[in-house]
Amino acid sequence: MCVLGLGLIGGSVLRAATAAGRQAFGYNRSVAGVEDARFDGFDATANLSEALARAAADDALIVLAVPMPALPELLDHVRTIASHCPLTDVTSVKEAVRQAVREKGLLDRFVGGHPMAGTAHSGWAAGDEKLFVGAPWVLSVDDHVDPDVWAEVMHLALECGSAIVPARSDEHDAAVAAISHLPHLFAETLAVTAADVPLAFSLAAGSFRDGTRVAATAPQLVRAMCEANAAQLHIALEKAIELLTQARDDLATTGSVADLVEAGHAARTRYDGVERPRIESITLGEPGWREHLAAAGRAGGVLRSALPGPGSRG
Amino acid sequence: MCVLGLGLIGGSVLRAATAAGRQAFGYNRSVAGVEDARFDGFDATANLSEALARAAADDALIVLAVPMPALPELLDHVRTIASHCPLTDVTSVKEAVRQAVREKGLLDRFVGGHPMAGTAHSGWAAGDEKLFVGAPWVLSVDDHVDPDVWAEVMHLALECGSAIVPARSDEHDAAVAAISHLPHLFAETLAVTAADVPLAFSLAAGSFRDGTRVAATAPQLVRAMCEANAAQLHIALEKAIELLTQARDDLATTGSVADLVEAGHAARTRYDGVERPRIESITLGEPGWREHLAAAGRAGGVLRSALPGPGSRG
Repeated sequence: MCVLGLGLIGGSVLRAATAAGRQAFGYNRSVAGVEDARFDGFDATANLSEALARAAADDALIVLAVPMPALPELLDHVRTIASHCPLTDVTSVKEAVRQAVREKGLLDRFVGGHPMAGTAHSGWAAGDEKLFVGAPWVLSVDDHVDPDVWAEVMHLALECGSAIVPARSDEHDAAVAAISHLPHLFAETLAVTAADVPLAFSLAAGSFRDGTRVAATAPQLVRAMCEANAAQLHIALEKAIELLTQARDDLATTGSVADLVEAGHAARTRYDGVERPRIESITLGEPGWREHLAAAGRAGGVLRSALPGPGSRG
Repeated sequence: MCVLGLGLIGGSVLRAATAAGRQAFGYNRSVAGVEDARFDGFDATANLSEALARAAADDALIVLAVPMPALPELLDHVRTIASHCPLTDVTSVKEAVRQAVREKGLLDRFVGGHPMAGTAHSGWAAGDEKLFVGAPWVLSVDDHVDPDVWAEVMHLALECGSAIVPARSDEHDAAVAAISHLPHLFAETLAVTAADVPLAFSLAAGSFRDGTRVAATAPQLVRAMCEANAAQLHIALEKAIELLTQARDDLATTGSVADLVEAGHAARTRYDGVERPRIESITLGEPGWREHLAAAGRAGGVLRSALPGPGSRG
């Protein structure tokens, strides 16, 4: 397996896959990152052509783990050197990545992925072989996906300890706009709003710390994920602004914020009670398998062990 | 000391004061709460007149620990039975409480307080004698406050392990609107926005859990604190809606959220680096002592040990 980009997520994938017994190697653009990874005992290089030639020779699964802006150029190299390798990514948006992969003619062997784990820190040093344990890892089930490649990526995600959520790329992007990108913008907004108020930082306690924690994330990472999902984030922002404006108007006219507070509490209570049924009875490659997986994911289902199919080991 | 209301905060004050060696007793309206407190070995009654008569006989410090809506009626009883006792409160808004206390003619012996600690849970059982350890505890330094009463409440907050932040009631309310009440409305909004999006709850991870944690708080508690601070919360909401609307428009026109993300990160970084100098060189009751304390609190200062003054033990 070949991981391109050894930041927080890519570096954690390299560690987790190695710990699971895979032969895994990595490429990183910065020599400092490569040296850190080697110092920690991992197989890493700053020579992209060398890494891709090795992947092509082994028919290795390639994991794209660079930020969105760096992706098109990286895909040019993949196409030139290793166009037949199975391909996945670990980026937080799926439609924009799929579009970039399609433009380079690499869609046939591509299954998009998104491990939903992270911290406010970044870089090789922030990585952790346990980062994905118990975390959802989305695998795309768009119309084009190949069951063999899907099975390969499924095995990787399971070896990393994740629970796989199958989803269409567009549905994934709408969901992460609501549960990740909007929360990031909310955290930034809370921090800015409080910054102008004397005493605010002196009194800030639990709800402020929680509500602004992700504002500590490096701005370029927040921008990269928000801006790559602009269309869906716009929809989520629109809805949120509407709710807050209604609450502001209610407060001014009736003195009450009951509607928002009760709806929010009900929604959060529902979230706490979400069921996560196991997805077990679908065979990869059988007629309608992608639609069945998308429906199961939409219903809250997760894969905790491998499904049978053409790429299955079982 | 007499604590009126044995919910999360009042119950924790009774525990902490007892643990610090004070003679402390409590009143709670619900008999179930009283029984729970007694079962845990505390001195509690459901008879308000009895509790207040005892407080009056001992000239005990009375701690108002009921929700805002219950306050006016409780203050009527305090005025009738124990009008000369020193009085404080533990409510999350300060101007509305001060107004209620003034209307009952009890302002002379009143120093408002707000321990900035809490959990998403409520009731006696949720209390903890360590709840206030290390937490800021605001003591009001409005023009009317008496140095003797201030000293009494200061000793209570220090015995509970808090760091005292002196503040004017209006400045406190503006600050908590930004760092507590607005975060609560943001959490409710995030939960409602995500609830309508298929897959969202299935994929929700760290930033969503953090961003919506306080939406699990009982709606009546959130409403009570937000609605009692309506004027300041309206100002904070206005600012936040303006920032989010600008971000939405930037996203639509330029595809960038750089302005908000960079400002948010800078604000959060500043928050992480806030200095908390100790307030040590002010004597309670000296000329200008209230203004000096307010200025010190505004500059981030905290009291970690008693100041000298008329009510001091030192």
